[in-house]
Amino acid sequence: MLAQQALFYHYGTLRMIEVGIVGGTGYTGVELLRLLARHPHVRVRAITSRKEAGMPVSEMFPSLRGQVGLAFTDPADAQLEQCQLVFFATPNGIAMEQARALVAAGVRVIDLAADFRIRDVAEWERWYKLQHACPELVAEAVYGLPEVYREQIRTARVLANPGCYPTAVQLGFLPLVEAGVVDVGQLIADAKSGVSGAGRKAEVASLFAETSDNFKAYGVPGHRHLPEISQGLTAAAGRPVGLTFVPHLTPMVRGIHATLYARLTDSTIDLQKLFESRYAGEPFVDVLPANSHPDTRSVRASNVCRIAVHRPQGGNMVVVLSVIDNLVRGAAGQAVHNMNLMFGLPETTGLEGLPVLP
Amino acid sequence: MLAQQALFYHYGTLRMIEVGIVGGTGYTGVELLRLLARHPHVRVRAITSRKEAGMPVSEMFPSLRGQVGLAFTDPADAQLEQCQLVFFATPNGIAMEQARALVAAGVRVIDLAADFRIRDVAEWERWYKLQHACPELVAEAVYGLPEVYREQIRTARVLANPGCYPTAVQLGFLPLVEAGVVDVGQLIADAKSGVSGAGRKAEVASLFAETSDNFKAYGVPGHRHLPEISQGLTAAAGRPVGLTFVPHLTPMVRGIHATLYARLTDSTIDLQKLFESRYAGEPFVDVLPANSHPDTRSVRASNVCRIAVHRPQGGNMVVVLSVIDNLVRGAAGQAVHNMNLMFGLPETTGLEGLPVLP
Amino acid sequence: MLAQQALFYHYGTLRMIEVGIVGGTGYTGVELLRLLARHPHVRVRAITSRKEAGMPVSEMFPSLRGQVGLAFTDPADAQLEQCQLVFFATPNGIAMEQARALVAAGVRVIDLAADFRIRDVAEWERWYKLQHACPELVAEAVYGLPEVYREQIRTARVLANPGCYPTAVQLGFLPLVEAGVVDVGQLIADAKSGVSGAGRKAEVASLFAETSDNFKAYGVPGHRHLPEISQGLTAAAGRPVGLTFVPHLTPMVRGIHATLYARLTDSTIDLQKLFESRYAGEPFVDVLPANSHPDTRSVRASNVCRIAVHRPQGGNMVVVLSVIDNLVRGAAGQAVHNMNLMFGLPETTGLEGLPVLP
Amino acid sequence: MLAQQALFYHYGTLRMIEVGIVGGTGYTGVELLRLLARHPHVRVRAITSRKEAGMPVSEMFPSLRGQVGLAFTDPADAQLEQCQLVFFATPNGIAMEQARALVAAGVRVIDLAADFRIRDVAEWERWYKLQHACPELVAEAVYGLPEVYREQIRTARVLANPGCYPTAVQLGFLPLVEAGVVDVGQLIADAKSGVSGAGRKAEVASLFAETSDNFKAYGVPGHRHLPEISQGLTAAAGRPVGLTFVPHLTPMVRGIHATLYARLTDSTIDLQKLFESRYAGEPFVDVLPANSHPDTRSVRASNVCRIAVHRPQGGNMVVVLSVIDNLVRGAAGQAVHNMNLMFGLPETTGLEGLPVLP
Repeated sequence: MLAQQALFYHYGTLRMIEVGIVGGTGYTGVELLRLLARHPHVRVRAITSRKEAGMPVSEMFPSLRGQVGLAFTDPADAQLEQCQLVFFATPNGIAMEQARALVAAGVRVIDLAADFRIRDVAEWERWYKLQHACPELVAEAVYGLPEVYREQIRTARVLANPGCYPTAVQLGFLPLVEAGVVDVGQLIADAKSGVSGAGRKAEVASLFAETSDNFKAYGVPGHRHLPEISQGLTAAAGRPVGLTFVPHLTPMVRGIHATLYARLTDSTIDLQKLFESRYAGEPFVDVLPANSHPDTRSVRASNVCRIAVHRPQGGNMVVVLSVIDNLVRGAAGQAVHNMNLMFGLPETTGLEGLPVLP
Repeated sequence: MLAQQALFYHYGTLRMIEVGIVGGTGYTGVELLRLLARHPHVRVRAITSRKEAGMPVSEMFPSLRGQVGLAFTDPADAQLEQCQLVFFATPNGIAMEQARALVAAGVRVIDLAADFRIRDVAEWERWYKLQHACPELVAEAVYGLPEVYREQIRTARVLANPGCYPTAVQLGFLPLVEAGVVDVGQLIADAKSGVSGAGRKAEVASLFAETSDNFKAYGVPGHRHLPEISQGLTAAAGRPVGLTFVPHLTPMVRGIHATLYARLTDSTIDLQKLFESRYAGEPFVDVLPANSHPDTRSVRASNVCRIAVHRPQGGNMVVVLSVIDNLVRGAAGQAVHNMNLMFGLPETTGLEGLPVLP
Repeated sequence: MLAQQALFYHYGTLRMIEVGIVGGTGYTGVELLRLLARHPHVRVRAITSRKEAGMPVSEMFPSLRGQVGLAFTDPADAQLEQCQLVFFATPNGIAMEQARALVAAGVRVIDLAADFRIRDVAEWERWYKLQHACPELVAEAVYGLPEVYREQIRTARVLANPGCYPTAVQLGFLPLVEAGVVDVGQLIADAKSGVSGAGRKAEVASLFAETSDNFKAYGVPGHRHLPEISQGLTAAAGRPVGLTFVPHLTPMVRGIHATLYARLTDSTIDLQKLFESRYAGEPFVDVLPANSHPDTRSVRASNVCRIAVHRPQGGNMVVVLSVIDNLVRGAAGQAVHNMNLMFGLPETTGLEGLPVLP
Repeated sequence: MLAQQALFYHYGTLRMIEVGIVGGTGYTGVELLRLLARHPHVRVRAITSRKEAGMPVSEMFPSLRGQVGLAFTDPADAQLEQCQLVFFATPNGIAMEQARALVAAGVRVIDLAADFRIRDVAEWERWYKLQHACPELVAEAVYGLPEVYREQIRTARVLANPGCYPTAVQLGFLPLVEAGVVDVGQLIADAKSGVSGAGRKAEVASLFAETSDNFKAYGVPGHRHLPEISQGLTAAAGRPVGLTFVPHLTPMVRGIHATLYARLTDSTIDLQKLFESRYAGEPFVDVLPANSHPDTRSVRASNVCRIAVHRPQGGNMVVVLSVIDNLVRGAAGQAVHNMNLMFGLPETTGLEGLPVLP
């Protein structure tokens, strides 16, 4: 990394990455802006929105008043090909339409949606009910989970930023699955998400009066993050895994709590040590001491994933608790981490803000 | 039941059950009062609180203004032995101190705490870290889950009202375990509770600023409801079960959502039919249509447990979703249901209020 | 009232009011159903929804499963003219289109929206930006605030059910304004509403992630409830009032808290006595003891309005605190109260449920 | 300020302010740590807690794991007199006991509690029901509202950090009161606070199940922030003001929303311009465009106060909306701002974090 950094800070001047954002009117968009506005090596050139073209960003998001001077630009006028990097904070199916031209123009792409996450294009088309527009970029795209694909990320042209549930679930399962100490045929991920995970879309199901003082599971028959998680864990295990994934909606704005269950096949393993050594040196994974219970607010507004591992009553069931902020580690923060890797910056640049508790 | 009812409505007059409540300053206490104040066959003679003796109940709980004229009485003055029934809405360890004398005086007892729930007194003492004061009443106490022990409840002198988690979890697992169609050695109950479950106690951990916009697991190494659930499921299975139970705190006032996982051993079983027939005719269990996701608000303020059963992707994992209102079905409402059974009343008397949604 | 009741219970048989509901897919609709499903003298014949025709009501609102057997009917098929009473739980502008025909057919109408609330049709058209379809019914419509218009309500053919804010604000100001003890030229109503007041509409502004852990004023330049409140207080004062009305959105599902300020012009008045005597005998107004602070949950799910009156530091400013459940007293419950009056039933029939606290 | 800064950055080396914190186990304590941990010119030497001495700070507040290495120290061992600055994040009545010795030792003091806020010691003793331990320091203490007392703050030895409500209310009223354009005899401040304002104390009234889905006023007869606000506005007006102050508890963690009412005495004034020019150049006050409604989340986790001014229907009532984060601008952030002023640092140092929305 040092060599790259040396290149980056050439002639003693601070070089800035020229960045574009497509689709900045959602929660991942405003979170990306919150982070990039304080990132010392980024200049956001354009942020697009067909519908809101002309509106100052800070009019839609007053939290950015005085900090982000941009207005939304019509995509046609954004000249994104002059950026070095374009983030897609769009619904699924948009990035795949524009990525080919950008890549051809030498622009690197980070897609915060799902277009490049699933390597099996047919599988992707089944779950997302769309025809894929550029399968060849799926083939070269790098899955942006730095704890697994750090080296590939550095040189990626197209980066698939992981989903929120997949981030929390994979980070929790990885040490067990990589070490081969659990029955990977019977993994269970019971995950709970704050409502911001549903996006900033006008839908009855996400209204305050529908979701507050309420708790429910959803998507039990099948959720789009299932194949993404399975793909990652299968790669880690070296063989197909069997996963039951049940997402739930919990009345909070931000945060994902994944409670993971796996049957231990090696009862001699020191689980605490396994997790600590797997994530030693990782800037954004924090393994808690034994017998801990991480709460989502301990990572609110930060890029950290906190994990605790338990073996209740000394039995053969491992229980892993993994928490992230779905908008940071589950979206915009991880995208910035990936950007830092892609452009040879120190990994934590722009991600130093401490969690906001309470 | 008809005979008992006939006795009850003797001489064309409505007989009233004379009831006492010990410890009415908590959430189960006020909920019991809310229900009993509208119960057509109950007269609450006394509600005790050492600390608040003399204070009108409606001063502490303004929701009861004009509806409950009682003041809290010092236990010494309450003359509970003149009641026909005494509810204990107290912390663990209180009911066992007073039950013997009441029973000797011919008073029936419903304990909403845990003193009589665990048949193995040594096990109880291990989990609750108290010495039991009347093991002989444990032996005769009836566990008040009407869907299992309806007949015994009718004649119970001491009734152990089930815990909130145990109610939601047992009702969800019972059809599977009774039918012998799942591997009872590897049951998993991932349960989420509203914060009222922690009671009306001055504790930092239950503050709004600690629990709002936050989600966490707790008690993973061991929670007191684990032996209670295991006991019930073991009885249903006819052999010891292996259960992993992980409770979570979710930022809502009322409600429990239990997500249950079990490995199917009989893949031919029609799960939907199994659940529907198990609970056919039950006034307080509602099996939802296939592919449903019950939300806790659909039972808010009511005594109903709603259940859905899933078999994701047709695999061998059964997922059961079970929701209750922890203060009603998980406490006061189930106690009233048990009272109705004990006194030969129609089961739904006083429990007709519809859920409050939104 | 006795004569009417005698007529009602003719021949010892319980007569049922045949009721129709137009537009039952919103929060006032489901709340109306919750109340009417337990009302002993009501039979809901039809509930209409163009969009959801054919869907069982309990599929949309699982809280009504097993209690409400109706499906939504297309308005064209509903035969509402065969009802005795039709509730409109619709957006503004619908009831005025259908009321004339219903009234002509002898059907009484309760409009939970605003079509008949403002007597000055031109004023109404200015605020609601619609042309009124039946001004002649505005002229005869009765404003359904029973504490003021009880006698007129009994015989009303068209009843304008008050808005939620107007109910809380008027009940709080009325004793002061009627008694002429405050400067009516400088009234201030600072009101806070739960988010269910925004309705069950797919709008970004009402999303959980927009409104939770957040607080804001809205409509300060002018809100539609301003002319409604002014009209009521002007009638009570006998001369035009000057009112500043600022509504706020607070992160809770149900409830309105109005904090009212008025300058005392008669410093000898016993405010506590004034309020208590004004509302003596009123079944749905509860004046709290001096120095009280009502909370919204003390009326949650009930039709009661609780009021406290203060005179801080003995100065000349009166502060009134008035709380209601916006969906019950502010909508469906008040409509049922009005129906009871219109059909000669005891006023509290079907409204006996106690507030749900916590 | 330049001279002081020049002194500060002597010899090209970054000098660090040696800081102590007394009482860091509350919400203002952890917020202070969150800010100071990222402040480039601060080294926290000690944080004291009698009760938690020895416990690592990050064990109590996992959000600080890996960022704050300190453990709580017993006050006796903290050697606070070796600090340059000591923050008191303690209950009222603690700072006054220790300030004299610290000041004598050359240590500057910022009290986040109320001990030095009220210049009239007798008045303070009436409201706080304590005897003041060092009235002579009250006399020299500077009230830390930078928009009013910036110059005095720079040289303060004892700084009284303003209360949360007083900050929001004074900033909203100041332009009007200073300009003499309103009737200062009839000011009304209707303020709403998140529950973190009640502190991290084990009290039933602050439990989630008491405050969630609920709204209430409190302290209407008299709240301790009333004399503080009155003192500030009286100073600004140059004559005694008449203020009615009604605080409310709203179910959110952070945030204060003050809605302020005043009768205009000069109807020609351009209110928007008045506010904008009063706060021109202020780094932490943001006057919104006309017709705006600031929401509390737009300042969440930041030190900014956002203000909007309205004149509904062009009448003579001014309505000001003022929002702050009670833990930042209403406590820890304002304290850091004051520290920056006291030590000649750029005012925004360490306070650059953008608001967290949603």
